[in-house]
Amino acid sequence: LLLAPGPSPYLSKRGNSVRGHQGILQEGFARYNADRHHQQHNPDGFINLGTSENKLCFDLLHSRLTQPDMLHIDPPLLQYPDWKGHGFLRRAVADFLSHYCGSRCPLDPDNVIVMNGCGSLFSAIAAVICDPEEAILIPTPFYGVITEDVGLYSGVKLFHVPLDSFTHPSPPPTPPTQGVMVRGVILVNPHNPLADIYTPQEMAGFLEFAKRYELHAIVDEVYMLTIFQEKVSFQSVLGMDSLPDPQRTHVLWGFSKDFAMAGIRVGTLYTENTDLMEALSQLANLHGVPGSTQHQMAQLLQDRDWISEVFLPENQRRLKTSHGYVAAELSRLGVPYLHRPACFYLWADLRKYLGEASFSAELSLWRVFLRHKVVLSCGQAFSCSTPGWFRIVFADEKHPLELAQKELTDGLRPDTTAIVCARTAPSPDKPSDRANDDNNGPAPAGTPLDAEEFVVVDCQSSKPTESLDSLMGVLRQQIRSSDWLEKNTPELCDGEDPGVLEVFTDLLRRVKK
Amino acid sequence: LLLAPGPSPYLSKRGNSVRGHQGILQEGFARYNADRHHQQHNPDGFINLGTSENKLCFDLLHSRLTQPDMLHIDPPLLQYPDWKGHGFLRRAVADFLSHYCGSRCPLDPDNVIVMNGCGSLFSAIAAVICDPEEAILIPTPFYGVITEDVGLYSGVKLFHVPLDSFTHPSPPPTPPTQGVMVRGVILVNPHNPLADIYTPQEMAGFLEFAKRYELHAIVDEVYMLTIFQEKVSFQSVLGMDSLPDPQRTHVLWGFSKDFAMAGIRVGTLYTENTDLMEALSQLANLHGVPGSTQHQMAQLLQDRDWISEVFLPENQRRLKTSHGYVAAELSRLGVPYLHRPACFYLWADLRKYLGEASFSAELSLWRVFLRHKVVLSCGQAFSCSTPGWFRIVFADEKHPLELAQKELTDGLRPDTTAIVCARTAPSPDKPSDRANDDNNGPAPAGTPLDAEEFVVVDCQSSKPTESLDSLMGVLRQQIRSSDWLEKNTPELCDGEDPGVLEVFTDLLRRVKK
Repeated sequence: LLLAPGPSPYLSKRGNSVRGHQGILQEGFARYNADRHHQQHNPDGFINLGTSENKLCFDLLHSRLTQPDMLHIDPPLLQYPDWKGHGFLRRAVADFLSHYCGSRCPLDPDNVIVMNGCGSLFSAIAAVICDPEEAILIPTPFYGVITEDVGLYSGVKLFHVPLDSFTHPSPPPTPPTQGVMVRGVILVNPHNPLADIYTPQEMAGFLEFAKRYELHAIVDEVYMLTIFQEKVSFQSVLGMDSLPDPQRTHVLWGFSKDFAMAGIRVGTLYTENTDLMEALSQLANLHGVPGSTQHQMAQLLQDRDWISEVFLPENQRRLKTSHGYVAAELSRLGVPYLHRPACFYLWADLRKYLGEASFSAELSLWRVFLRHKVVLSCGQAFSCSTPGWFRIVFADEKHPLELAQKELTDGLRPDTTAIVCARTAPSPDKPSDRANDDNNGPAPAGTPLDAEEFVVVDCQSSKPTESLDSLMGVLRQQIRSSDWLEKNTPELCDGEDPGVLEVFTDLLRRVKK
Repeated sequence: LLLAPGPSPYLSKRGNSVRGHQGILQEGFARYNADRHHQQHNPDGFINLGTSENKLCFDLLHSRLTQPDMLHIDPPLLQYPDWKGHGFLRRAVADFLSHYCGSRCPLDPDNVIVMNGCGSLFSAIAAVICDPEEAILIPTPFYGVITEDVGLYSGVKLFHVPLDSFTHPSPPPTPPTQGVMVRGVILVNPHNPLADIYTPQEMAGFLEFAKRYELHAIVDEVYMLTIFQEKVSFQSVLGMDSLPDPQRTHVLWGFSKDFAMAGIRVGTLYTENTDLMEALSQLANLHGVPGSTQHQMAQLLQDRDWISEVFLPENQRRLKTSHGYVAAELSRLGVPYLHRPACFYLWADLRKYLGEASFSAELSLWRVFLRHKVVLSCGQAFSCSTPGWFRIVFADEKHPLELAQKELTDGLRPDTTAIVCARTAPSPDKPSDRANDDNNGPAPAGTPLDAEEFVVVDCQSSKPTESLDSLMGVLRQQIRSSDWLEKNTPELCDGEDPGVLEVFTDLLRRVKK
């Protein structure tokens, strides 16, 4: 049987915790990295439809990134930079966001900070708006890596608010434990993993909610240009006429998704809050971007013709085609999914294939796919409250998609499978599942890939409610009905900061009304 | 009068602490960044001899970094990488270190992790070998930024061990406060700011010391190739016949210093400790390097001809010339300094120019230089225990060096100066020193640049003892003579980790002998 590693004598408690913090799907990505599918060189390798990457536009990017303007070096690029990002890049980001977010006034480069990815920005923001063990609200399901981003260094907790808690009243949302102080709320729009696009009205409502409770609103818009249906438009909060609480509204964007460059490690934050900016600047040298990369990204953002005339239309056309192909295959299989013209993935309901409505069964199904050399992401990686949902990335080329589709179809075929549940006996004599590949702490280990099978079981299917009204209702209800605010009196949490005390006292006063 | 900013209601206690954690010299660097000297475009701007950068080799770097092999893009470079660094780069680093460190066996790429700078590595290592409020020993003076690297995110303290505590018996070294757990020790070789080069024998003694107390030895060798005298050689610990405690020996290297590319943000760690490597891997996505930069740095490291035949000899020749020029000027002024053929800086003894032997007077002298538009780093930025020492970077081109030398000489001329001390009255009517330029928390604010002057006062000068024997003697004496080990019984610190308990018990047993 495969066990998580014991504590190391070389590491601190925190170090051992960090070491053990491997996501439940890390095994799959490790296998993919060791044995990647390639049409010519490795046709039998793993296909990764689990990582949200866009692999459709390499030709466009290669063509642009190898133009002569990209190979520019001048002395400041090789010297210690302004840690917030070079001025030329922050100006380019402000101009770019002003244009593509439709801001009413030009955005100010002084409100931009650049770090090596949005994960770094989450980490740094969490560190400076929260003390250790404080919390940020996040609707579930959500992009699970944020848990590590805010938690590993900063010790900040995410307080989950299930989006489907109205359609699934049991178990009810758990109110925060006594003593948990909530400092902010994260909203990802377009959403990951649902691919929902919130309307300006929904976002305004959401920001009003955050304002009422004096919560920082961290708005992640990394998919803002990844919309591939002409009649559908996305509205950034940076394009709103006015923000309800501009000092507590912080907008993330980056190159990973909208420019299909997850490997370039550049994320940006726009905030009008100078206190926050000053605090983040002190952490920014731990998240710096090479000067040469800053130059390249500025060149790209300034090339409005390439973005609007070349990259975006062709990228959207290809995304639409791939989406259509995978959506049609899911429909053919009778698999329900959320039909959204955004992002790189479909949120698919495979509950009818689970032997039982459990996360163990979900993980077993995930392992069936892995046995077929297809890596997916299952709902528990997104803290989905209902087992059986999977995120399927479609932004890949046709050949791997076809192969994956064949393997998925095989994996879901009743005649080749048998009941999947946590009690399936392992086959210890199968050497292919090495112990060091399988140290996912919380997962029900002991179900090696080759040993398990499953049958299709018909079970009730219902779509989670994803509307923002529900989310806000839940949040309001939780905060009002629970006693955590009552118990967290100003005396308990004031510390040495009169500002925080004032904010809290005011919040308490208004909630008690 | 200039005050540090009050606490922000938008930030947590930690966030306010991070925000207030500006180094005392940040004002100088902010002015330099806003008004940089340029021979043609801005001849009256600030000259920065405070930041340890090599500005002598841009032509060599430009020539190499614009060759066609640098403009290479392939799909994996644009996708999510192995967070430890791409395999091709880790192989190149292992080969490079094997060759230039003279390792007896080829170093293993699996023992290499790459992050965006050595500061990030310090941050991540501190987080996983220490719990918050635990400590790492460091001899002083030391490169002060390490305080923020290990402290801001990770909450780890540096425990200072003054190198000159034997020649300056008062004040004596303070033993660690009761309850402080020391997990490691940092040694920078060649040293920053002293530019000392420790011999293999000294390093072996140091590593034996660390082994005896089961401390992680974090060895920072970022200046290992920056030696500019033919008869002097540097010996990396990676070239030692055997390491006393290989599981607790971790070696840092990076491109910032030895390749004069502080802006490229690439640092490397070599460690045989797989537990540490696993823990660091979990944090590595917060410190990622762009795929394209990883490609470029691998190309550079593999170009052994360029490194050994072009870059290193020419770089060393230029460093030697610049060093000679600044050293001669200091001698001409009668300023004592440590004469070392390494690094980018001289450690100079300006104590005779202080009106009184205080850090306030040192800061005032620093401000005199700033008034002359020369940014230096003074000893308190390195936690030097004796006021009056300055680090002067010489790795700049001749023109700014000459200008700076003229300004420094003017600043030190007795007839233009008057007594400098903390009680110098501010001139509130001078608008040039804006409040928002001067929020260095701990510094004695209220001594605006234009208002102060000083006289040369002859005072006794003595060179700090920098030998490793002294350091180890101090460390031994402190740990043996203090009662912190006695008071930290195994029961007090065991927590849930039997390995840590065992290590501690053993340490206690042997120290009590």
